[in-house]
Amino acid sequence: MEFVTRETRMTMTLFDLAAAEDDRRFSPNCWRVKMALRHKGLQATEIAWRFTEKDRIAFAGSRTVPVLVDGDVTVVDSWEIGRYLERAYPDGPSLFNGPGGEASMLFVKLWAEQTLHPIVLRLILPHLFARLHQKDKAYFRESREARLGGRLEDVALAPADGIAQLHAALAPVRATLAQQPFLGGSTPLYADYIIFGVFQWARATCPISLLREDDPVFAWRERLLDCFDGYARKASAALDTDRLS
Amino acid sequence: MEFVTRETRMTMTLFDLAAAEDDRRFSPNCWRVKMALRHKGLQATEIAWRFTEKDRIAFAGSRTVPVLVDGDVTVVDSWEIGRYLERAYPDGPSLFNGPGGEASMLFVKLWAEQTLHPIVLRLILPHLFARLHQKDKAYFRESREARLGGRLEDVALAPADGIAQLHAALAPVRATLAQQPFLGGSTPLYADYIIFGVFQWARATCPISLLREDDPVFAWRERLLDCFDGYARKASAALDTDRLS
Repeated sequence: MEFVTRETRMTMTLFDLAAAEDDRRFSPNCWRVKMALRHKGLQATEIAWRFTEKDRIAFAGSRTVPVLVDGDVTVVDSWEIGRYLERAYPDGPSLFNGPGGEASMLFVKLWAEQTLHPIVLRLILPHLFARLHQKDKAYFRESREARLGGRLEDVALAPADGIAQLHAALAPVRATLAQQPFLGGSTPLYADYIIFGVFQWARATCPISLLREDDPVFAWRERLLDCFDGYARKASAALDTDRLS
Repeated sequence: MEFVTRETRMTMTLFDLAAAEDDRRFSPNCWRVKMALRHKGLQATEIAWRFTEKDRIAFAGSRTVPVLVDGDVTVVDSWEIGRYLERAYPDGPSLFNGPGGEASMLFVKLWAEQTLHPIVLRLILPHLFARLHQKDKAYFRESREARLGGRLEDVALAPADGIAQLHAALAPVRATLAQQPFLGGSTPLYADYIIFGVFQWARATCPISLLREDDPVFAWRERLLDCFDGYARKASAALDTDRLS
């Protein structure tokens, strides 16, 4: 693991998934990293990248984003990028607050990917698909229909069904937030950004409100939208005009 | 929070749920604490307690176990006992490996209680009920039938159904253990004992094998059964004669 000087920090670059418009950034896994960078007090040039631009990240040995380039170091995969930032920038606020945090947040990550991601993907699917860059649509349809086991139009969830499934799936998040303001405790940690990324995925693509305002998860999401001078809220601001609530 | 001297350690007492026989200790939440005590290198006199002996723990302001008495300090609730041991015995190995671990293991605890506990309870229910102390049976039936919303005989799961549900529910545990030997990382932490307690609940009461031997969760459970000189394995040894596998 290489430690990076202030000079090389200036060259940090994140390849970040975009929809048709360059500023519609919807990847849940990229959102983890963008929040983690700000948590660490770091900045990266966030380059709009589309699903089919495999050649642009071939240098990293990856076919998916996020890809972080920090000087001479290239890191692939949002979990590995979080671990890299923690080790390369130990002076910034910790993302895990200790090795036990890192170990058990891996469980949170895998739980979220197995439980929340499939529901939210199928809930936002028609909206997400409509907003993709034209050149990504065939790729997205083919890869996601193989993964989901059916035509996009058939595997999409009716909004009421998806919202009900999401509400039920969020039960352990809700119970945790009844005891502490963030999954990370008194302040947000990487576990929070992992779950928050799921909501940014929807926020950037879909006009459906996923949470009721009286849900403690709603208040938690508001707190995260306010973090870092409202960074995540502002990033989605241009898209809010077409939200239903 | 009071720090306790070696002298008062000698008087540590844990009220621990027992079945008809004094040595059949089956509470998943008490198992968390018994593993945590050994993790910290501590010993407690583990007193057999039955559901209906509310008067014996009334001094603690609790109607349930675990209740830990450490000199002048009484602590109720397995999560609070874990936090107490971490703070009162900072020289022993950490149960959380940092504040981020404690915060995110609360999520693991709540997830386990919402997801695994109901399945395993309904899976082991007839066996558990049969092994209860006679004086506890009416209390158990009334309280659990109210909680589960039906007669014990009706809410019990057929073994094959319960095992299939448990296998599916354990998916994020299994995925985590594919990346690290314990939920706590390279060594077990309180998150491991939380999930392990669920299996000890079954092991102490029920002859049904819950896990296939090729499941990574099986190998993880074996590692925990071997911890502390095989403490948990030995504790259940007298019950193994009637296990099916």
